[in-house]
Amino acid sequence: MNNFKKLCVHTITTKPWSIEVAMDKYVEAGISGITVWRQWLEGHDISKVGDQLRERNLEIVSTCRGGFFPAKTQPEIDTAIEDNKLAVREAAELGAPMVVLVCGAVPGQPLPDSRKQIADGIAACLPLAEELNVKLAIEPLHPMYADDRSAINTMAQANDVCDHLDHPLVGIAADVYHIWWDPDLETQIKLTGEKDRLFAFHICDWMTPTTDLLNDRGLMGEGCIDIPSIRKMVEASGFKGFNEVEIFSNRWWERDQDEFLAAIKTAYLNNS
Amino acid sequence: MNNFKKLCVHTITTKPWSIEVAMDKYVEAGISGITVWRQWLEGHDISKVGDQLRERNLEIVSTCRGGFFPAKTQPEIDTAIEDNKLAVREAAELGAPMVVLVCGAVPGQPLPDSRKQIADGIAACLPLAEELNVKLAIEPLHPMYADDRSAINTMAQANDVCDHLDHPLVGIAADVYHIWWDPDLETQIKLTGEKDRLFAFHICDWMTPTTDLLNDRGLMGEGCIDIPSIRKMVEASGFKGFNEVEIFSNRWWERDQDEFLAAIKTAYLNNS
Repeated sequence: MNNFKKLCVHTITTKPWSIEVAMDKYVEAGISGITVWRQWLEGHDISKVGDQLRERNLEIVSTCRGGFFPAKTQPEIDTAIEDNKLAVREAAELGAPMVVLVCGAVPGQPLPDSRKQIADGIAACLPLAEELNVKLAIEPLHPMYADDRSAINTMAQANDVCDHLDHPLVGIAADVYHIWWDPDLETQIKLTGEKDRLFAFHICDWMTPTTDLLNDRGLMGEGCIDIPSIRKMVEASGFKGFNEVEIFSNRWWERDQDEFLAAIKTAYLNNS
Repeated sequence: MNNFKKLCVHTITTKPWSIEVAMDKYVEAGISGITVWRQWLEGHDISKVGDQLRERNLEIVSTCRGGFFPAKTQPEIDTAIEDNKLAVREAAELGAPMVVLVCGAVPGQPLPDSRKQIADGIAACLPLAEELNVKLAIEPLHPMYADDRSAINTMAQANDVCDHLDHPLVGIAADVYHIWWDPDLETQIKLTGEKDRLFAFHICDWMTPTTDLLNDRGLMGEGCIDIPSIRKMVEASGFKGFNEVEIFSNRWWERDQDEFLAAIKTAYLNNS
């Protein structure tokens, strides 16, 4: 890599920055794409934010996040589906082609039951997604989140849900943090290529030791993940999209965010 | 369950207690088995500790732990093998039939390379294990430990190593904490039964939220794991061994350990 044409940054990566600050800083840094977390749109005229991003030639890669479909009761399930429809409408309003789904899980509920609720929930959103032409990207989450964040913990499980739904708007967001250990990684990534369903590729790193289950992700190169190898698999499968930097890190959020953004660019060139 | 005939407690579960205190407390509580962590034997006459446990009719279920075979250099690999041979000798001296293996991993080293080093390391210990009749139990670890604790993260991977070594002294220690999310759990447990290689069954629970990657395990029933279902699978596979309570918990270690032991007994009857 010798440029930033495929570099995208998630607004949550530079959490201290508002959407207004983030978009200017990203452009100034020569970053090409942005994934907007929905919290960054709260209280905003969403279509206007979309215009501002387009005026700056920042490509809107996706919004984060929908999902959390599983629940114990039907009213909660219905509420989750409504929120996902809202996420689809917001994406369309912003001009984002895709919503990333953190699919959800309910502590104590059998994982296969949650997977069925996930598939049903996505299916319920598909008519609106078709109408607005918004893709839905299932992000398999690391098994340490199988209790309450996602019952979809491997690439194979994500591919299974996609097979079941069999719809061109349903695909996968592959995040190295979640899948680097996956026992069947290469085969399953290849399968996403054959089925034309790898919609997104997220990068960061796994710290040793990891001191927090949520907010101790590393910058690429700080941890143990062989990102170039996974990127090679992803590109070999035909993926031509962005490399999206999605880092939740209390450590980095405490630092100067301009320095962090500069470090992201260096790490992207050297360790991705 | 209406008795404690199959209840074993790991010395690390009641970490504040020395081996001398633990053995008396366990017997007083009517617990039938003990798994001795090697740190509890340091500075002790090991065969004498074995005698003390036998005098109290405490069944010695295993010692914890060997493993950590993978390394970057040959001298480190040799050192790891020597430590595992020591663990085998210590188990024999104590009168324990088995050593549990936390197999190891090296941050940044490809997991398949580590798995090969693990298989080779176990193979190197087998002549001594045969001589002393000590079993080696591979414990698959949750993928959140794939960076530096174990490259064996699923029951299928553990079964693969066992298939490769194909030796009656090499089997598996299944811990609900590590395997509850396993995508192929029932099939792989069944396979351990067919191959007569399920050597141990460990219980505890997964807390939501989990606040520490190592030392925030729950007492059975405190978390999201459906232990009775997994136990049913394990027993259906033919397993007749102990239910070993292995809980690392800063929260419980800070409390009165007599109360904790009483809580373990209740949780064992009600949630296991």
